[in-house]
Order: sequence, then C-alpha cells, then structure tokens
Amino acid sequence: MQAEIIAVGSELLTPDRLDTNSLFLTQRLNHLGIAVVRKTIVGDQHDQVRDAFQRALERAELVISTGGLGPTLDDLTREAVAELLGRKVMINEAVLHHIEARFRRLGRTMPEVNKRQAMMLEGADLLENSRGTAPGQWIEAAGRILVLLPGPPHELQAMFAEKVEPRLERLAGATRLFYRELRTAGLTESEVEERIAPIYAPYSDVQTTILTAPGEIQIHLRIWSDDPASAERLLEELVGRITFALGENVFTANGQALEEIVARELTLHQATIATAESCTGGLLAERLTRIPGSSSYFLGGVVCYSNNLKIAWTDVSPALLEAKGAVSPEVAQALAEGIRRRTGATLGIGITGVAGPGGGSPDKPVGLVHIGLADAAGSRERGLRFPGDRERIRWHASQTALDMVRRYFLYARQEKTARPGGVQG
Amino acid sequence: MQAEIIAVGSELLTPDRLDTNSLFLTQRLNHLGIAVVRKTIVGDQHDQVRDAFQRALERAELVISTGGLGPTLDDLTREAVAELLGRKVMINEAVLHHIEARFRRLGRTMPEVNKRQAMMLEGADLLENSRGTAPGQWIEAAGRILVLLPGPPHELQAMFAEKVEPRLERLAGATRLFYRELRTAGLTESEVEERIAPIYAPYSDVQTTILTAPGEIQIHLRIWSDDPASAERLLEELVGRITFALGENVFTANGQALEEIVARELTLHQATIATAESCTGGLLAERLTRIPGSSSYFLGGVVCYSNNLKIAWTDVSPALLEAKGAVSPEVAQALAEGIRRRTGATLGIGITGVAGPGGGSPDKPVGLVHIGLADAAGSRERGLRFPGDRERIRWHASQTALDMVRRYFLYARQEKTARPGGVQG
Repeated sequence: MQAEIIAVGSELLTPDRLDTNSLFLTQRLNHLGIAVVRKTIVGDQHDQVRDAFQRALERAELVISTGGLGPTLDDLTREAVAELLGRKVMINEAVLHHIEARFRRLGRTMPEVNKRQAMMLEGADLLENSRGTAPGQWIEAAGRILVLLPGPPHELQAMFAEKVEPRLERLAGATRLFYRELRTAGLTESEVEERIAPIYAPYSDVQTTILTAPGEIQIHLRIWSDDPASAERLLEELVGRITFALGENVFTANGQALEEIVARELTLHQATIATAESCTGGLLAERLTRIPGSSSYFLGGVVCYSNNLKIAWTDVSPALLEAKGAVSPEVAQALAEGIRRRTGATLGIGITGVAGPGGGSPDKPVGLVHIGLADAAGSRERGLRFPGDRERIRWHASQTALDMVRRYFLYARQEKTARPGGVQG
Repeated sequence: MQAEIIAVGSELLTPDRLDTNSLFLTQRLNHLGIAVVRKTIVGDQHDQVRDAFQRALERAELVISTGGLGPTLDDLTREAVAELLGRKVMINEAVLHHIEARFRRLGRTMPEVNKRQAMMLEGADLLENSRGTAPGQWIEAAGRILVLLPGPPHELQAMFAEKVEPRLERLAGATRLFYRELRTAGLTESEVEERIAPIYAPYSDVQTTILTAPGEIQIHLRIWSDDPASAERLLEELVGRITFALGENVFTANGQALEEIVARELTLHQATIATAESCTGGLLAERLTRIPGSSSYFLGGVVCYSNNLKIAWTDVSPALLEAKGAVSPEVAQALAEGIRRRTGATLGIGITGVAGPGGGSPDKPVGLVHIGLADAAGSRERGLRFPGDRERIRWHASQTALDMVRRYFLYARQEKTARPGGVQG
C-alpha cells in the first residue's frame, strides 16, 4: 500500500516552520508496511486544499492529511474535502457535546466558533480526539481511504496510535519495513562513504542513507520485506560487513546517542565521571546528564571560564597557565586530573579551547581544542582543530570527549583480554 | 509573483529527513516579494518527478526544484523535466571541462558517471556551481520559469545567492515582505492568544503566527507590501499594541534568544554571573556561554549532582540539606548565594529539581524545580512545576532562570526610575 501526506497550514509555507508531523506519520506507516510516496504542503486556501486532495486521491490508495480542523474560518479542510467528494457536512451532536463538556471542565463556555469542529462529512467515521477538541475523520470513497487528522502533534500522535493504526493494521499487507541505524565517531563523511559504498552498493534491496552531524556519521539501512527472517538476516549481514570495514569507529547499530553508549559503559564498569570545561561551557555535563539516572555515574562538573576559577576549582598551577597558556595540552590534562582528584571520580575530563568567533591567534586559532582524560594511572590528551562556527566547534568538542571515554573502555576491554595485567593510563 | 518548490529525493520521504532547503528558499523568495504557495516532496522515481513538475507548472509562474542533479542514475530531475517539456538533453562541453578540472584539482580522475552532471536541457541557461560539480539550470517555457537547483544546502545557497537572486530581482515586482518577531517568557500559549487575538485580528493584511517552545511563545508578524514606509509603520503600530498588552513578558521584537537578551543586560550593567546547577546539569551555563564574548560576564559554574558536591562547591550546609531536602526553596537560594560568594560574581543562580523520569515523590513530583537568584543584598526564589519529559523540564527550568535574570535588571531599572534610592534584593 502507498500513501500520500498532505499538510495544510499557511504557517508551513513560511521560513519558520516545517511540517514535522509527516516524520511521525512516515515512521508509523512504514512500520505497517505502507510507503509514503509524496508529501504536499498547502496553505489555508480553499482551492489549493481541494486541488491537493484531488490530485493525491488520483494517485494514492491512502491519503492522510494534517491540519485545517481548527475552529476558525481559516480551517477549511472539512469543507474543501466535502466539496471535492460531493458530500454534505453536518454538525455531529455527540461531538458537539464532547467539545462543550471539554470547555466546561476548564470552567469556560464553548465559543460559538468551536461548533465548526463538530462538523463531520456524510458517511465519515469519527476518530475521537483524546487530547483536544477537533475529532479526526476516516472517509472511504471510490476505493480510496482518506484520513483527516488535526495539526497539533500531541493530538495527532495520540489519535493516530489509538484510532488509525489499528484500522490500517487490518488493511495493510504482510510487507513491513526493517531497519538498522549505525553511528560512527572519528571518521568524516567521505571516509565512511569511501569505505562502505562498495559494500552496500550490491545490496540493491536495502535503501542506504548517510547523514552527518559534527563528529558523527549515521548510516541508515532500510528494507521492505514480507519475510521478516530473511530481511533481518540480510540487515545483520550488511551491518556486520559495514562494522568490519569501519571497525571501532562504529558505536551503535541501534541508533543510540553517543552519551547513551558512554552511560552504558560507565554503568557496566561501575565507574564515575566528572568534568572540567572551559570552551564547551557545560555542554559535556549537559549531555552526560541528559540520560535518566545519570546521577549514578556523573558526580559533577565545573565550568571554569576564568583562569582564577581553573586554579580554584581544579588546582591547575598558575605557573603552568602562565607557561603554556590556558589552551594547551598540559592544561587540558591538569583540568582532567584536578577535577578527578577533587570529586573522587574514576575518570576526569578536561576541555579547553577557542570556540570563537573571537579569541583566536595564529598559534591558537579558532577551533583548536585540547581534551584531557584522566584515570587513577595518569592522563592522556587529544588536540584537534574543528571546523565551523561556535556552536559546531562546541558540539564537536563534546562529541570527541565522549568518544574518548567510549574508547577508553573499549581499549581497557581489549587490553584485559590481551594482557591480563590490567589497564595503564 | 507566486512560486512552488519541489524537493526531489527518496531520503526526504523517510522518517529521518525533512526538506530544510525550502526554508532558506522561502526566506529569500519572500524578501524578493515572491510568495511560496505550495511545496511538493517526491522520491527518485521518473514518473513522480515528471508529474510533480507538470502539476506545478500548471499552477505557478515560478517553479524551483532542489535535488536530483547528482551523478547517479537515481538523479533524474534533468531527464524528467526534459521529457515533460519535450526538449533534448545534451552534454555541455564547458560544464564537462569544469567538472573534470574540479576532480583534477582534488588529484582524482572524473568517474564516467559524473558526465551526467554536464547534461543541460536545450535552451536552458547555465547556473554555475561555485561549491560543487552539478550546475543548476534556468529554463523558460510557456510563460513559466523553472529553476533546477542541486540538493546539498551549501551548493544550493551559494548558487541561489550568486545566480538566481539577481535574475529574480529584475523580474519580481515592487512587493516585499516586512517582518517582526516578538518573543515572550512567562506566559502560556493560550494566555498570549487570548490577550492578543482581539488586537491582531483587525490587521487583516498582517499574517500572524504563534509558535511555542517550553517557556517561550513567539509571535511572528509578516506583511506583503509595495510601500515600505507604511508597512513598517503598520508593523510598529501592531508591535506596540501587542507589547502593551503583554507587558514585560515580551523580551524581544527582533527574534533574539533569551540568552542574548540576558547577555546584553549583564554587559550593559557591567555585571557578572555564576551558576550552580543540579537538575539542569549544565544547560544554563551552556546557554549563557553560547553567546560569543560570554567570558566578559560569565565567570563560571558548577554542576553539583551529589549532596557532597553541593556542600563542597557552594557551602550549602549539611543541616539544611538534611532538614529541607536537596529539592527545596532554601537549598536553591543557598546554591545561588554560595556560588556567588565563591566566584565573586554580581549574581548567582541556583537550580535544584526533579527532571525525571525517576526520582519523584508525592511531595516532590517530577517537574518540580526551585530556582534561586542571589545578589549582594540577598536572594529570592521561584518554585515551579514544569510539564513534559526530562528534556522539556530541563529546558523550561533554564528558560525560567534566564527570565529571572532578565526581570531582575528590568525591575532594577524601574526601581531606579521610581526611587533613586537603589536596588533591594
């Protein structure tokens, strides 16, 4: 089965807003084995809306629309579709009572305009809205299915899960989408592409998409199949070959964020961590604490912008700051060692660099970042120069710091296997 | 003049990717006085692409497409449009040499497939690509203008600015878009809507959009006009009336972020700030340091998850933690006072709360956050319960903290005006 999505709303034709509802719908439809073959975005004009539905119904078995079910005169999806299908719209008394009751519960009288939201097309099935006032409508016409959903994401998502999915499940065929998402750190997009293009190219049934973010390349693999066992086998095989080619740079095959992987490693090793950040300004601590339950491994962190606070909070020696400068390998290591000692954490991380746009020099240009990692045995350091603006440089630095922690545990494991003598810093 | 945008690419019909190029194009087109009336997104299928162009050319004077100009067989925008218009495609020797030269500069031989990128439609004007290999094409047919642009954003943006904008500028009328973006903190969407709907409704020429984020409501005002002076006057008048209705809750009329406003206030007052965060995990420090030059007002911050570190880093008394619990008004104030004292900052902020999903209790449920603000004269506190998940709760808390700092300076100014005696904490 193939579907088209129509998003109705003039605000979606401004430079400020994207139709993000279609991402949710596409994901859920794909899981039902339904492919989305076109998306159309139109404004709140009767003729545009009518035309969009007309064309979509000429092409697709299933048309799902979002938006235009509100109470105002701008909300004209109902009327445009009714006109197109030659059906009447009528007030549905049960819906009207539901809307009135909703307003009463909030201690308010229903404004007259909201009556519009109780208007249903002749022959349409009501899709109740558990999160708001506007009901959805399920319409069957000339062998096509037309589903009108409200625009607010939380209303739409609840309605789709509760009312639409069970119906589509019964109609959809046996074909389903199978999916893997690999993520890598430490490689550029072209390095990834070069290494894996010869691998995935022969898998013509698998749709491969490569996405990039600072310090992270994602590889999305999708396959449509009515044979789950062989689809999973094919994906596993491809994941295995790609992982072999990219090695330890791959940190997940299930779309997990790098901070989730680091959280898992810390938990697994019953290790704790503390951070001392300068140019990233707290971003590393913020990412480490995004994970629920992070208090079990994250002890704390400091953001020490000034040299005085570097000295006061992590015992970096004034002489070292004077001799090497705040942005230096030595200070990165001293920050890591100092915060580790102060907090008693298993690992300490120190970050110092020039995030820009100002503050760069020929010696220490914008984008230069030093990252220190300390454990009980000592510390090591990585110096990198990141491209892009302040935001990208900061993100890339936090990503690299997290990846150093991930690799720390990776090598620890490898060394343990190779040489039972233990881990050296 | 009205335009439609067609985005070509199967990856844009997956749950992972949105067509973001259209935001850039819409903004630039709007500034030229060209409205975008429809967006269509199709996959890499010949018939779908052809149909999308056919329909768009039936409706709009200007059709701009993105994507499908790459070297592989999947890239079929050129062929689909040529077939639709009944024109031949031919290798353009100059373009071919340009592509070959580009590969040579990178020390590589041009792969045979890249020849496809030198294919131009009969009668098309070449739009040179200063950032990549695929040129764009400008095609005029039956009174319509068709512009084919490459998909990679940096290539498309450069090409649009260098080659397309100057041509459209000559064609576009005198109508232009005029724009204001108000942002508020401290009000809900329905409070904003209720107060301003009666104000903006009579301004039928102004398109008003209300967008929401945790702790922030944005009001976007746009007007199309060929008379800049009266458009600006109208917007100023509407901004004035809305600002009067929403009062000090409005923090910008120019779309600035709250952290930018706080940075400006701190700089203006030659004040400094330091943070002690628990549940926000560094997010407040991270937001304060997003702004270039933040080292002039941000001294530093601590993320003290554990009670031990709250005591060690901000001198919160163990007895207070014992008596009131870590999530309490008193501890929020003690964190703010402690970090201020330790760093010597003008202002100290302390945040403690339950970000969830675990850790809640009937007394102190998930979403409860206490925020303390300290100055030389003492400290105050706000306790709020934020809805949503961990990410939303943390963001909302950081937003509220920033807003407390903004209002601190606002009231300081008001008091100074009213009573020259100075500011009380």
